[in-house]
Amino acid sequence: MDGFGVVIHGASGRMGRMLLRVVAETDGMHLAGALDAPGSEWVGRDAGALEPLAQGLTVTDDAVGAMARAQAVIDFSTPEASLEIAALAAQARAACVIGTTGFTVEQERALEPASRHCPIVKAGNMSLGVNLLTGLVRQVAGALPGWDVEVVEAHHARKVDAPSGTALMLGEAAAEGRGLRLADVAERGRDGITGPRAEGAIGFAVIRGGDVVGEHDVIFHAPGERVVLRHLAADRAIFARGAARAAAWAQGRAPGLYGMDDVLGLRTEG
Amino acid sequence: MDGFGVVIHGASGRMGRMLLRVVAETDGMHLAGALDAPGSEWVGRDAGALEPLAQGLTVTDDAVGAMARAQAVIDFSTPEASLEIAALAAQARAACVIGTTGFTVEQERALEPASRHCPIVKAGNMSLGVNLLTGLVRQVAGALPGWDVEVVEAHHARKVDAPSGTALMLGEAAAEGRGLRLADVAERGRDGITGPRAEGAIGFAVIRGGDVVGEHDVIFHAPGERVVLRHLAADRAIFARGAARAAAWAQGRAPGLYGMDDVLGLRTEG
Amino acid sequence: MDGFGVVIHGASGRMGRMLLRVVAETDGMHLAGALDAPGSEWVGRDAGALEPLAQGLTVTDDAVGAMARAQAVIDFSTPEASLEIAALAAQARAACVIGTTGFTVEQERALEPASRHCPIVKAGNMSLGVNLLTGLVRQVAGALPGWDVEVVEAHHARKVDAPSGTALMLGEAAAEGRGLRLADVAERGRDGITGPRAEGAIGFAVIRGGDVVGEHDVIFHAPGERVVLRHLAADRAIFARGAARAAAWAQGRAPGLYGMDDVLGLRTEG
Amino acid sequence: MDGFGVVIHGASGRMGRMLLRVVAETDGMHLAGALDAPGSEWVGRDAGALEPLAQGLTVTDDAVGAMARAQAVIDFSTPEASLEIAALAAQARAACVIGTTGFTVEQERALEPASRHCPIVKAGNMSLGVNLLTGLVRQVAGALPGWDVEVVEAHHARKVDAPSGTALMLGEAAAEGRGLRLADVAERGRDGITGPRAEGAIGFAVIRGGDVVGEHDVIFHAPGERVVLRHLAADRAIFARGAARAAAWAQGRAPGLYGMDDVLGLRTEG
Repeated sequence: MDGFGVVIHGASGRMGRMLLRVVAETDGMHLAGALDAPGSEWVGRDAGALEPLAQGLTVTDDAVGAMARAQAVIDFSTPEASLEIAALAAQARAACVIGTTGFTVEQERALEPASRHCPIVKAGNMSLGVNLLTGLVRQVAGALPGWDVEVVEAHHARKVDAPSGTALMLGEAAAEGRGLRLADVAERGRDGITGPRAEGAIGFAVIRGGDVVGEHDVIFHAPGERVVLRHLAADRAIFARGAARAAAWAQGRAPGLYGMDDVLGLRTEG
Repeated sequence: MDGFGVVIHGASGRMGRMLLRVVAETDGMHLAGALDAPGSEWVGRDAGALEPLAQGLTVTDDAVGAMARAQAVIDFSTPEASLEIAALAAQARAACVIGTTGFTVEQERALEPASRHCPIVKAGNMSLGVNLLTGLVRQVAGALPGWDVEVVEAHHARKVDAPSGTALMLGEAAAEGRGLRLADVAERGRDGITGPRAEGAIGFAVIRGGDVVGEHDVIFHAPGERVVLRHLAADRAIFARGAARAAAWAQGRAPGLYGMDDVLGLRTEG
Repeated sequence: MDGFGVVIHGASGRMGRMLLRVVAETDGMHLAGALDAPGSEWVGRDAGALEPLAQGLTVTDDAVGAMARAQAVIDFSTPEASLEIAALAAQARAACVIGTTGFTVEQERALEPASRHCPIVKAGNMSLGVNLLTGLVRQVAGALPGWDVEVVEAHHARKVDAPSGTALMLGEAAAEGRGLRLADVAERGRDGITGPRAEGAIGFAVIRGGDVVGEHDVIFHAPGERVVLRHLAADRAIFARGAARAAAWAQGRAPGLYGMDDVLGLRTEG
Repeated sequence: MDGFGVVIHGASGRMGRMLLRVVAETDGMHLAGALDAPGSEWVGRDAGALEPLAQGLTVTDDAVGAMARAQAVIDFSTPEASLEIAALAAQARAACVIGTTGFTVEQERALEPASRHCPIVKAGNMSLGVNLLTGLVRQVAGALPGWDVEVVEAHHARKVDAPSGTALMLGEAAAEGRGLRLADVAERGRDGITGPRAEGAIGFAVIRGGDVVGEHDVIFHAPGERVVLRHLAADRAIFARGAARAAAWAQGRAPGLYGMDDVLGLRTEG
């Protein structure tokens, strides 16, 4: 077993299986545990049924035990479960990578105590492309002050929330680039007699269908021209690879709350 | 003055000015009147200030007088005003081309009496491309029964309704192709916790910004692949040219209510 | 083992592995053989190393033996190898599904003798979406006679030919819709001082990068508007599923040379 | 006549007419001359026939006389004609804005003497959006070193060169961002058996049709994801407005050779 050990939380989910494979394939780290929620039908079974490369590992719901053997945990689950995992990672002094979305402001804040004892990398989207795009959107929104900004996203038919967390992150970046708060300027769910577009608005449009992994367009409109910044994700593995990269980056890092722009070296002043 | 005479109703609007130019430029027809709403600041002035090629024509609000001298009227206004124009066209036995959108079911029905006395061509979008696309959408929706259908449209920032009339027309065509009613399956204004996409839904997404003339995508999604039927309008003149073509087509035609698929020879069985 | 038996030719290639999985997963058929080229390092090994669902099957280079146990063969290889497989299928009276591209006219013709003894389905692209699109392109090219047609395609960086076979097939369809031969009107590889676009030309543009599975746009241009017919393939499995569907369709079918429009019931008069 | 005087060179061309209108409409400047090539059928006629707002100005081929009355000249013509105009602008100490494309390296160099006596702004594309995009492309090409870069452009059917000057400018920016020379890595005019895409290549694809004003995509490909930077021009007026803005910016500026990034304040370190 080379490198540091990684526990996958939510191992039986679609992203969990992908993470089992990617961590098993990545040099410098190895699978140290396959955690699933108590009550999951997978607990007690061999993880090889989830992902051939995980063969020999037994799926468990014993988070404390699993964390004791690991230097990092990667978690794509629910805000509640992520908070528990972060607390355990803090106790174990393990790095904690959180890809879960939908945190409330209070839940965000509840991560702080844990982040005083271990490095936590939290991001709504772990792809290099999207995180780069976020910086570009902030920059362009500032450079083109009067241009109408629209964020368009497409995802698979099973997605339950709209707009996507990534679309909101891109909208936030555009608002920041103009010194505004997104909540003050967002136009969402246009339908019926909407009246003309509000000056300075940031609009959102939502497409759902098939098994689209995730596509995001940020469109800047002026009379006679448009600039479009687009990201297309074709393979969920990009998120898993980003999470694995974050886990590696966090080894030996000081406790604190980090984002993917830290991991990717993309941090720019807002 | 060659050819038949055409009155433009709503002459001072953006589409009205375009129609003045296109009718003046089109062989086989000539401008016979520039009508504007009573109270318009343009009434009594030379139409050359609206469009150089209309010079010599005085803008009027006397619809009866204007219609008496014409063989056709083209109208992009409001449903109420269009109904009045249609009634006058019926009296004058002139062809009536209506590009107005936003008719209620009752207003649609109120056109019938007039259509017993003159040919009326009514369409929410008079471009060749969109009308062709509508037929393709009906056909593909039938040929790909399980595929998720989404309609995405983009228009300029001043547009007050969403989705566009054309987007709804395309959605109707998709529903017809599957023997459904759009009202039963439309998903509009997605925002917040929407839950997964409903099986068989036809979704709508709305983009607003700049001076975009009109763009429509109909996307069919299956696992692993997508078919997209797209129309891009870059110049409002395509709608004016379509209306002029409809006015010419209607000369000598039997009274009745027609669509652009009749004019363009695109009528297919639904 | 339910249903009819299928031999996969070229089992160790990327499409071959996909076919092993798809055939193993599809009701009504089962894997009857994993054929690879003589000299392949995989010959003699368990096919489970190529695709877990193929476990228990030994990769072989004995085409005659493999065909003797099967009712169908699916082949994505080279024109030379495909011709040999077709001859063996003819002897075995098995259905032969060929996804190989790059046949010369002579090689196409050399399939005829075999097609007198077994049903052969040959197609450059086996996805439902592309084959549907091909029919639409033929239809629209005829309905919009003066519009400029451009075919744009994007594929992964390893692709060695340009434009793609599918792009050429779409271009052929556009030419057919206008009663022309593609060779007479194709504009390929534009670079340098090209002069203006030839009237009636069908243009091709080629994008290469990353691991793009395959994207095709057919764009029809008129002044002020465009109609775009687009296909996006995100997962090579759509081609494998199409091939499996063709193999099923061909069971009990009369000998002959068929296309995917036959399989999919899309055959329309040109 | 308010503001400084501007001569339009190439007044009878499509861009020339647009410039007549835009300069006439822009505060702080006025039309001081409508220059056309000697032998043009327009010489001696009222410029109002080219553009109503230019009425009262006579089209001339007397460049020296026209420049004597002006503080700026805007020129979209041919490299040869632009060099002559720059020399005259240098004599007249007038600002010179050049939108002409297709300069050879020698012709570029031949501008230097003139640029020691007057400010010259030269750019292949004068839109704000494209010039902003150019900076983004340089930045992203550096930030995503291993990603495959492709530049795709679409223009109207009459365009005689390929790829467009703007596409080449974007390709240059990508090459600069990686410390490369475009000539060493460009893949143009792909057709036939091309072999796999060269590592580190910057590819070009060209679409021609209808009256498309100008569309440019720069696509960065990695396994499983893409980032696309796109500019869409819908109205040639954006180039004329950019040129007028450059003429105003150059008033009182020191002699020298400038680009649109100077005018727009977008200059960044490469």
